[in-house]
Amino acid sequence: MVTGLYIMAGGDKGAHMDEFSVIEKYFAPLTMGQSGAAGLKDDGAVIAIPEGFELVVTSDTLNEGVHFMIGEAPAMIARKALRVNLSDLASMGAKPLCYQLNIAFPDMAEEAWLEAFCGALLEENEMFGIYCSGGDTTSIKSDYLSLSITAFGLVPCGKAVRRGGAKAGDLLVLTGAVGDAALGLKLLLEGIDSANNLAIMRYRLPDPRVGIERILQKYVNAAADVSDGMIADSMHIARASGLGLEIDLDKLVFSKDVEKAIENGDFSREKAATGGDDYELVLAISEGKLGEVLTEMRNNNLNPLVIGKFTDNGLSFSVIEDGKYRKAGKGVGWKHF
Amino acid sequence: MVTGLYIMAGGDKGAHMDEFSVIEKYFAPLTMGQSGAAGLKDDGAVIAIPEGFELVVTSDTLNEGVHFMIGEAPAMIARKALRVNLSDLASMGAKPLCYQLNIAFPDMAEEAWLEAFCGALLEENEMFGIYCSGGDTTSIKSDYLSLSITAFGLVPCGKAVRRGGAKAGDLLVLTGAVGDAALGLKLLLEGIDSANNLAIMRYRLPDPRVGIERILQKYVNAAADVSDGMIADSMHIARASGLGLEIDLDKLVFSKDVEKAIENGDFSREKAATGGDDYELVLAISEGKLGEVLTEMRNNNLNPLVIGKFTDNGLSFSVIEDGKYRKAGKGVGWKHF
Repeated sequence: MVTGLYIMAGGDKGAHMDEFSVIEKYFAPLTMGQSGAAGLKDDGAVIAIPEGFELVVTSDTLNEGVHFMIGEAPAMIARKALRVNLSDLASMGAKPLCYQLNIAFPDMAEEAWLEAFCGALLEENEMFGIYCSGGDTTSIKSDYLSLSITAFGLVPCGKAVRRGGAKAGDLLVLTGAVGDAALGLKLLLEGIDSANNLAIMRYRLPDPRVGIERILQKYVNAAADVSDGMIADSMHIARASGLGLEIDLDKLVFSKDVEKAIENGDFSREKAATGGDDYELVLAISEGKLGEVLTEMRNNNLNPLVIGKFTDNGLSFSVIEDGKYRKAGKGVGWKHF
Repeated sequence: MVTGLYIMAGGDKGAHMDEFSVIEKYFAPLTMGQSGAAGLKDDGAVIAIPEGFELVVTSDTLNEGVHFMIGEAPAMIARKALRVNLSDLASMGAKPLCYQLNIAFPDMAEEAWLEAFCGALLEENEMFGIYCSGGDTTSIKSDYLSLSITAFGLVPCGKAVRRGGAKAGDLLVLTGAVGDAALGLKLLLEGIDSANNLAIMRYRLPDPRVGIERILQKYVNAAADVSDGMIADSMHIARASGLGLEIDLDKLVFSKDVEKAIENGDFSREKAATGGDDYELVLAISEGKLGEVLTEMRNNNLNPLVIGKFTDNGLSFSVIEDGKYRKAGKGVGWKHF
């Protein structure tokens, strides 16, 4: 399909690159020489799945001005788009393999932008041991970029961790601190920006829980990544498993930035628990396996928190704060339910 | 990730559906009950690959006003987006399996639109024996829709048909008539629209060459689907295979509409050979296998045409028209080379 892509070339003023030059120069190196991707010259990629493994597939679209700030740095966009997908693979217990990259450019994208974007992806590929298997580069009738990634991971057959596998009595375990991304977004929307602000950086650049897939495959009954908000995503698990859930906000541990913002009254535990984009994992783990899981996670430099329990009390959700039960409801912010 | 999706509900004025209601009502049925897709409630889908098979993956993005007309009917958008991907799978010799659907809505999309879009996809699923394995629904800062599909197919290990497999002496075979889509687009841009015009319908609704994958796996050395234009896509094969190519335009057979437009001077053989969006296949086939291939294709209701030959004459491309050699060049329209 003729895409009408038009990238303003660096150097010569007025010169431009067509789709094929762009693919060859910037995107083909992202295949990391994998023969199945054929340097992005075939109509599709061929992906061999090792015997005994299943494929896990996930997609996320990121739109400028919706999922990242207008004018965000290309390297940040690249890293975030990839990492939100890797986070989904992590929550399924899958080891990342490769990804398809579909990118719709506004008119007159510039080569320098592409260079920074693809340079960052190359670094991500190396960091996570993955490659780009294919995709599409197009132009869009808009001033804003739209980017879709479909990521692929491998999991031993039958070992994928689903949302619906929690059992009554399972503990709800969170892999780390939440709230930083929501605080970071709040600061950005208030016009505060600083590369030294950890909360802002955590919003802009998620740190997906890649590398603990064997722990998930071995011990975890159900999981979700914290993208919609910790409470909402924990409830996704409870719902899919047909269980009730009690979450104890007093068990949360926050970063120094979030703690300070809560103390100052600029932020709240509730906002930390319901804001999105944390990319920690929430896990359902049977009590008998808890000790092993916590040990293995700490060995992986994580600080897991036991923050709740799945119950057979219908689909009833409740939240404990300051030692008191609070019935879950719209006011707590998980509008999705 | 919070998507900000906002779909205006049918019925109640001012009511709207959030992302989760939209997924449950419209997108979950597209999984056709496949357990690996978990009703779109997991972070990803689990796809089992039968032993002895490889996965073929392809992506196409379609943007309103670029890849289809502004205001195009939702059912047509749905069918076209899926079929251009199925065409890529067909050219690789892969049998379609499933797809990820990433759709970015402009503000205030309406439920009636969604209903028509997903209704058409459901029909396509049944027609092609496929299902939706997952995806993402988001909102975009634009008045125009953007849609990405990543499609998956299966092929016996080692049997995927690549672009780089042509051999000197192979014949170039085209699976049918080209030019209709380019003529249809020309008419649409001139403001002519008619549901009864076959050329326009062929632009709006491609007919991918699904169902002949076993012929490709068994006999074909290299293939591409005709999306950029028949000459450009044939040259992709030659380039990837390190060969020269002679194409004889006199061997092309056109539809009645295209033939008539050429006679009237409104269109040309060159335009038919260089316009895009035909979604026929161009194939490299060794002379010894030609008879069998033509017979099997005719048994599948195709009208294949032998229109050229791959040569070991460097990367030299030439075109024959009215019995005379014409050197390939910019004037012939394949700007990609």
